[in-house]
Amino acid sequence: MRQVAILGIGQTTIDEHWDKSLREIGGEAALTALNDAGLERADALFVGNMLAPMIDGQNQLGTFFADWIGLRGAEAVKVEAACSSGGAAFRSGVMAVASGEVESALVVGVEKMTDKAGHDVTAALATAADADYEIEQGVSFVGINALVMRRYMHEYGWKHSDFAPFSINAHANALHNPYARLHHKITAEAFEKSAMVATPINLLDASPIGDGAAAAVLVPAEAVVSSNGRARIVVAGSASATDTIAVHSRRDPLFLTAAYESSKQAYAQAGIEPKDVDVFELHDAFSIMAALSLEASGFAERGKGVQLGLDGGISPGGRIPVCTRGGLKARGHPVGATGMYQIVEVAQQLRGECGPTQVEGARVGLAQNIGGSGATIVTHVLRTA
Amino acid sequence: MRQVAILGIGQTTIDEHWDKSLREIGGEAALTALNDAGLERADALFVGNMLAPMIDGQNQLGTFFADWIGLRGAEAVKVEAACSSGGAAFRSGVMAVASGEVESALVVGVEKMTDKAGHDVTAALATAADADYEIEQGVSFVGINALVMRRYMHEYGWKHSDFAPFSINAHANALHNPYARLHHKITAEAFEKSAMVATPINLLDASPIGDGAAAAVLVPAEAVVSSNGRARIVVAGSASATDTIAVHSRRDPLFLTAAYESSKQAYAQAGIEPKDVDVFELHDAFSIMAALSLEASGFAERGKGVQLGLDGGISPGGRIPVCTRGGLKARGHPVGATGMYQIVEVAQQLRGECGPTQVEGARVGLAQNIGGSGATIVTHVLRTA
Repeated sequence: MRQVAILGIGQTTIDEHWDKSLREIGGEAALTALNDAGLERADALFVGNMLAPMIDGQNQLGTFFADWIGLRGAEAVKVEAACSSGGAAFRSGVMAVASGEVESALVVGVEKMTDKAGHDVTAALATAADADYEIEQGVSFVGINALVMRRYMHEYGWKHSDFAPFSINAHANALHNPYARLHHKITAEAFEKSAMVATPINLLDASPIGDGAAAAVLVPAEAVVSSNGRARIVVAGSASATDTIAVHSRRDPLFLTAAYESSKQAYAQAGIEPKDVDVFELHDAFSIMAALSLEASGFAERGKGVQLGLDGGISPGGRIPVCTRGGLKARGHPVGATGMYQIVEVAQQLRGECGPTQVEGARVGLAQNIGGSGATIVTHVLRTA
Repeated sequence: MRQVAILGIGQTTIDEHWDKSLREIGGEAALTALNDAGLERADALFVGNMLAPMIDGQNQLGTFFADWIGLRGAEAVKVEAACSSGGAAFRSGVMAVASGEVESALVVGVEKMTDKAGHDVTAALATAADADYEIEQGVSFVGINALVMRRYMHEYGWKHSDFAPFSINAHANALHNPYARLHHKITAEAFEKSAMVATPINLLDASPIGDGAAAAVLVPAEAVVSSNGRARIVVAGSASATDTIAVHSRRDPLFLTAAYESSKQAYAQAGIEPKDVDVFELHDAFSIMAALSLEASGFAERGKGVQLGLDGGISPGGRIPVCTRGGLKARGHPVGATGMYQIVEVAQQLRGECGPTQVEGARVGLAQNIGGSGATIVTHVLRTA
């Protein structure tokens, strides 16, 4: 298979876009990416989305967006893997170009989820978990993550306040990202005093939902010398792995097997090790997930992910900068779009466009998108080449 | 890219399976296909489904089924393109194996849709159309197809009774398919007297919904000499194309552009012409769609698809046998599963396993799956080799 390059990127602000439709949000990101790539169209369109059938009454988003953005006739399909829909759609686009099936692919992650009442959204998000054996018992999606966090604290002896650095770092970085949902600093004191959602997860452990879309244009790397004068970014590793859908079925609920497997495969494809990674856009839907991702992806030992935060290792100048554009916690989490925001943000880092949160000399970036409570995990390695 | 072969197939009966869950139905088809292939597992799983988030409260079906059928850890994803979800998932599986990314892929189309009240299902099916510009105006999905059928009758001068052969043929063939939803013959008189649904579409123009799943195992063709003593079946052509999502946006609402484009590409890949096709499993969600599919795929001139039925050309001994296992009309239409039933049925024809409705000497088969009212169309050419 041939190597694939990212020729263009685009994103919308994440917000409660009550004045914009699903069409307009996805279309804005898609056309921005095509424009950034200097292309008028792409051969195929892959859309990542989780909630549109339930929230917007709209299925068949591949064709829906192809029609809207001027790609009528082109092959188009939607890929869904809960909150990892964006990463899964990106992987489909990578495979389509790598295989030679198409010469260009546009990938869009999109979600419009704030037009419904909160309980409708909570119910829709619960479809990421096991309907029969988790949700039917009355637990919500945040409730499942709360059980995991409590178990982690019990097992390794961490206090709730030890998780504060993840959220503080995310909010500090989002201040410099104009596309982010939240633009305010938080303190360790605010973190501890925040309203409880599902013990021990409080409001500042949890990421906010939002409306948004992010997109990228993929082409064969051999066709790109430089990307409009910027660094050429190639997809050096692409892998996806799964775990049980219900957390209670896992032998070890504190280890993200699918993160371990997909990152191992992606590192091998790229010929790198964790120490070679300059920036890591991870899936901090809840602060506990940041710790577990760092551990399973080879950046910390079991139970030590929290220590990395306490040591300052996750800031833009640290050993392994994470959430440099705000992460799910502060950039926001428009679920089916999140994986594509991660891809776009890693690309921005590799292009050197991140201002005060730029990781100096970033050449290798990791994007890891999680569906369910670690059930589907898609990991990509991007690098300049 | 390397050629891909179908090593195993599986299907469940289509029915109101109130005693079986979504898991059980999909799992049954998947395990039957693996067993038929003589394999214990596959490298990757692709699931086609449209309604589970809305009807069953379950998303992330790739991981959901990988977990259930013993493929824990394997890459798994769901593909959605309304009623063409099954065909789109099959195409994803074909690309994954063709590209060399995986050595085996299991594709499952599944739908569990009869546990909800009829109006809930009607609303869920409407997500295949344009939510803002069609459904919001009060038209249902069958209503959109009724407008197309009326226009066709007006334009070409056909009477409603001229469409009867499509439904009569489908019901006659389903009698010999143990997996079919309906097992009764119908007459031309019954066709005309049937209850009206949306003028001019009556009950016997329309396909019944149902619960069901169908699956296939894909491997590189070079790895297969014979498939357990049966004819080796290869995927000779695979293509997908789109049209506007709303029917009213089309310059010519009576021509399925996406069927024309995708069949043209698939024929070219296979090096065949329509006259080389021995059997055609088409997407007769409504009788009008059978006529339009025959025309756009090169088997009849514009406005003459109905004539092919009246001449007897669509029966198992005719010029272009269609719906040889009952089609959507009588085998049934479990929407996200339908495309995989078509694949399985063409494979059965090429294996010579269809008893009284076997097409003698069938060597080349066409499967064409439609999402929305012609918005997404996925066409595959299978042949013995």
